[in-house]
Amino acid sequence: MATVAGDTCATLNPSVCQGVPPLLTDLYQFTMAYAYWRAGRHNQHAVFELFFRDNPFNGGFSLFAGLNDCLQFLRDFRFTDEDVEYLRTVLPSNTHPDFFAYLKGLDSSAVSVSAVAEGTVVFARVPILEVSGPLAVVQLLETSLLCLVNYASLVCTNAARFRLAAGPRRRLMEMGLRRAQGPNGGLTASRATYIGGFDLTSNALAGRLFGIPVAGTIAHSYVTSFSSLEEVCPKTLMPLRGGDPVELVPLVKDWLARVCQLLGAKPQQVREGELAAFLSYAIAYPFNFLPVIDSYSVSSGLPCFCAVALALCELQYQPLGVRLDSGDLCRQSLLVYNVFRQCSKQFSVPAFESFIIVGTNGVSEKSLSELNKRDNEIDVVGVGTHLVTCTSQPSLGCVYKLVEVGGRPRMKLSEDPEKSTLPGRKAIYRLLDTDGHPQMDLICLSEEPAPKVEEPIKCHPLGLDKAVQSVTPAHVTRLRLDVFSHGEILLPLSSAYESRVHAQTSIQALYPHHRKLEEPVSYTVAVSERIHSLVSDIRRGNS
Amino acid sequence: MATVAGDTCATLNPSVCQGVPPLLTDLYQFTMAYAYWRAGRHNQHAVFELFFRDNPFNGGFSLFAGLNDCLQFLRDFRFTDEDVEYLRTVLPSNTHPDFFAYLKGLDSSAVSVSAVAEGTVVFARVPILEVSGPLAVVQLLETSLLCLVNYASLVCTNAARFRLAAGPRRRLMEMGLRRAQGPNGGLTASRATYIGGFDLTSNALAGRLFGIPVAGTIAHSYVTSFSSLEEVCPKTLMPLRGGDPVELVPLVKDWLARVCQLLGAKPQQVREGELAAFLSYAIAYPFNFLPVIDSYSVSSGLPCFCAVALALCELQYQPLGVRLDSGDLCRQSLLVYNVFRQCSKQFSVPAFESFIIVGTNGVSEKSLSELNKRDNEIDVVGVGTHLVTCTSQPSLGCVYKLVEVGGRPRMKLSEDPEKSTLPGRKAIYRLLDTDGHPQMDLICLSEEPAPKVEEPIKCHPLGLDKAVQSVTPAHVTRLRLDVFSHGEILLPLSSAYESRVHAQTSIQALYPHHRKLEEPVSYTVAVSERIHSLVSDIRRGNS
Repeated sequence: MATVAGDTCATLNPSVCQGVPPLLTDLYQFTMAYAYWRAGRHNQHAVFELFFRDNPFNGGFSLFAGLNDCLQFLRDFRFTDEDVEYLRTVLPSNTHPDFFAYLKGLDSSAVSVSAVAEGTVVFARVPILEVSGPLAVVQLLETSLLCLVNYASLVCTNAARFRLAAGPRRRLMEMGLRRAQGPNGGLTASRATYIGGFDLTSNALAGRLFGIPVAGTIAHSYVTSFSSLEEVCPKTLMPLRGGDPVELVPLVKDWLARVCQLLGAKPQQVREGELAAFLSYAIAYPFNFLPVIDSYSVSSGLPCFCAVALALCELQYQPLGVRLDSGDLCRQSLLVYNVFRQCSKQFSVPAFESFIIVGTNGVSEKSLSELNKRDNEIDVVGVGTHLVTCTSQPSLGCVYKLVEVGGRPRMKLSEDPEKSTLPGRKAIYRLLDTDGHPQMDLICLSEEPAPKVEEPIKCHPLGLDKAVQSVTPAHVTRLRLDVFSHGEILLPLSSAYESRVHAQTSIQALYPHHRKLEEPVSYTVAVSERIHSLVSDIRRGNS
Repeated sequence: MATVAGDTCATLNPSVCQGVPPLLTDLYQFTMAYAYWRAGRHNQHAVFELFFRDNPFNGGFSLFAGLNDCLQFLRDFRFTDEDVEYLRTVLPSNTHPDFFAYLKGLDSSAVSVSAVAEGTVVFARVPILEVSGPLAVVQLLETSLLCLVNYASLVCTNAARFRLAAGPRRRLMEMGLRRAQGPNGGLTASRATYIGGFDLTSNALAGRLFGIPVAGTIAHSYVTSFSSLEEVCPKTLMPLRGGDPVELVPLVKDWLARVCQLLGAKPQQVREGELAAFLSYAIAYPFNFLPVIDSYSVSSGLPCFCAVALALCELQYQPLGVRLDSGDLCRQSLLVYNVFRQCSKQFSVPAFESFIIVGTNGVSEKSLSELNKRDNEIDVVGVGTHLVTCTSQPSLGCVYKLVEVGGRPRMKLSEDPEKSTLPGRKAIYRLLDTDGHPQMDLICLSEEPAPKVEEPIKCHPLGLDKAVQSVTPAHVTRLRLDVFSHGEILLPLSSAYESRVHAQTSIQALYPHHRKLEEPVSYTVAVSERIHSLVSDIRRGNS
């Protein structure tokens, strides 16, 4: 398993979606932009908020990811002539021609964004991003921003749950590229799952672009491509400490006989092709030997591995271990580990006791939790499909809602109270208690003074029919930062590594009852008294 | 709802993944390529097959999509210097330097591909793609090809099921961009769902790139951005037949009073901001007026719509209809339709009886099936999340397996018989009965003669413990075509429209019992007697 902690510089090429064209949006954004333009309202100052209504996976928290992509999309936001000519063919024929000239001149120079830092723990209903600027422009940004935040945050949160399920020590490897929704689905998954707490990815491009440690060994096709020891070439290896090259085929055959005797196995149950494949692999990578041992069956693959590993050890090389890709991973890992100990003892090769065992077989959050509770010797778990497709909830459902226009608060009043929005431009505070644990996210109007440390504040928890509540914070942090203004990104883009460190710290700061995977205690999100009154006023039709 | 049947030319820019870099793959492909190269086997001629093991969604069929992306990826397959330098840092340090020179020189000029046409109905276990060429090169292609086929085929199949659930007449619109796995997840979804049978997309870029008809109206944010009739600007509209501009605010207020009287509604229940929003939209697009009418509640939105539509009709314009985005769509559509009929009768405006009703509210395959069975007046259904995320099964699970190397058939023997592969290079035939319905897909070795019309052939159905079976086809078609060779794409890329026509024909040709959504009858996939014997020989260790 080749791994490397790569360059974590985010400036190399941090975007998974280089050149997300602004035409990648829903047509109705243009219908609306035109209607605003026609009414002369396109330059009215508007404020939109991006948030989700429920934490995914019935969980108690989420992680925010995707900010870098949003910022680069904003910076490069500009329609090409071809885009505008296309729009001319699909918008109604009576659209005023000056509107197309207007579109050609648009950019993000009048747009401002404040956002939570990537990797921060976030909760339902809390606005993660605030986007403000000319009404028509910020309306046009909606779909692209949602597309860039939704999946990144979902899969990052999913990864954090896998991390919690696995416990802190076991290493986790993401290997979902082939099951993701195409190339940048796969790249987004690799980056966001690393932030969420995975250690490694199989995705070589993600390694290059984001500095994520990459890993990988061999597939079944490599093993089945060999049929005889005659295919092994070259057939010799130099002992590490020097001396003449050693013929490996007879050496391995000799070790295989001894292993079979030790294990009470019949040499006929060992596939010659598999032995040839392992030997060729070992000759190519004598320091990195970690084959998959169940292409035919473990009863063939395990003796093959031991024979080749013993030959390598005899020549002073250090094999790495094995991968299991089918069946009951826990049970098989114990069997394998037991055989390693027998070999170590019988042949006096203590290296066998430190071999790693990698498990990869349709692992889900649930099976990982179970694996964590059962006896096993699995050191690294590889996860693909269930991680990147987020099987149990494949979409996050972020929304992008208008909260202020022309200086006046706006609110969507819905018959479904869950679908109503919170009006007005806001500041978001995370209140910590004396132990440093987050105890509440408080949503205030931006013109309100910030909550003060050790002063009680009255607030209204959301989603509960609770009355006013009083809270006295020990620490107060402002949750969002200004990240974009005048067409420019205001902060250095954070690398995947930096976001990962931040995410893990952010999760660790939570009370365990908020981060537990099943039936977590709800974290409190509250609004200030001012917002509460504003909502009441608007509901009564007074605003 | 602005729609247009765009240019369906596939040469405009048919790729959703322009420049999928070959480094977008799993690291282990390079480990294997190196091991082959080190053993001098990298140029051995190898054959891989791409297939899936089960039809998704417990269905009886699948549709193949994603071929264009595969072909363009293959044509452009070449590592950059930066790619190779990166690989030098992550492969083990004892990797021979000549291997990196070898990687720099690689391209697809020695690769050949045969494939099923895009949009063809395909079944589990039938190899959709055959990729042959130098062992190391065709191994390196694995992950990227799987990534490009898996999601496209899955979401295309999902769309076909939504199409079947909806019945043939109702129009279906894809609007999932914001819920897809990033930009090209969204683009792939728009293209593949159109092929699967959707009529429209909200995705403007998909419209431009693939010639898919686009549609879209307005969002709730547009409606809630207005608060008073003073914001309406301009306030006049020219009657279509000529004459002086007409002041619309008094005209609409007048109509609103008459509508409220007709419906027994109180004018106070109508939101002035909503009326202003509708009126502004109508002035901007008097031929394309189709607002969403439940931003506050239908009891406000519907009278507003009727008033504005009546004013437009009075000036000889033709409104289009309404969109419903919450609640019980069937029940609400009946209510709306009933109001339209009342208006038509009361005010003698027959146009009201031809307004369309668009429904969009978390529609799933199940809810669409139910909607199709219940009374309703919904003409167009918009689907997002459940369509593009394929909620009920978010991955297809295509695999890419070695079947021949150096002229010798290879097979993965697994303890799980479902995971075993079929050895050898193959030709695939679809056998039709006298009614023109597909009755069986027959997998033969490529050197076998093709089945002949009206001659019985013996074969072995897969997945059943059935004995040999005899079949006499009325027609025989070869399922795969040669699509790539010597670094070049051999056929014109098919446009989304062409693939859509082919897909719909392909589904219609199936017996209804194979295409039904629940508990379909399994379609028979069989192997020739030659393949059957070859498998038995290999299992006995004779090959």
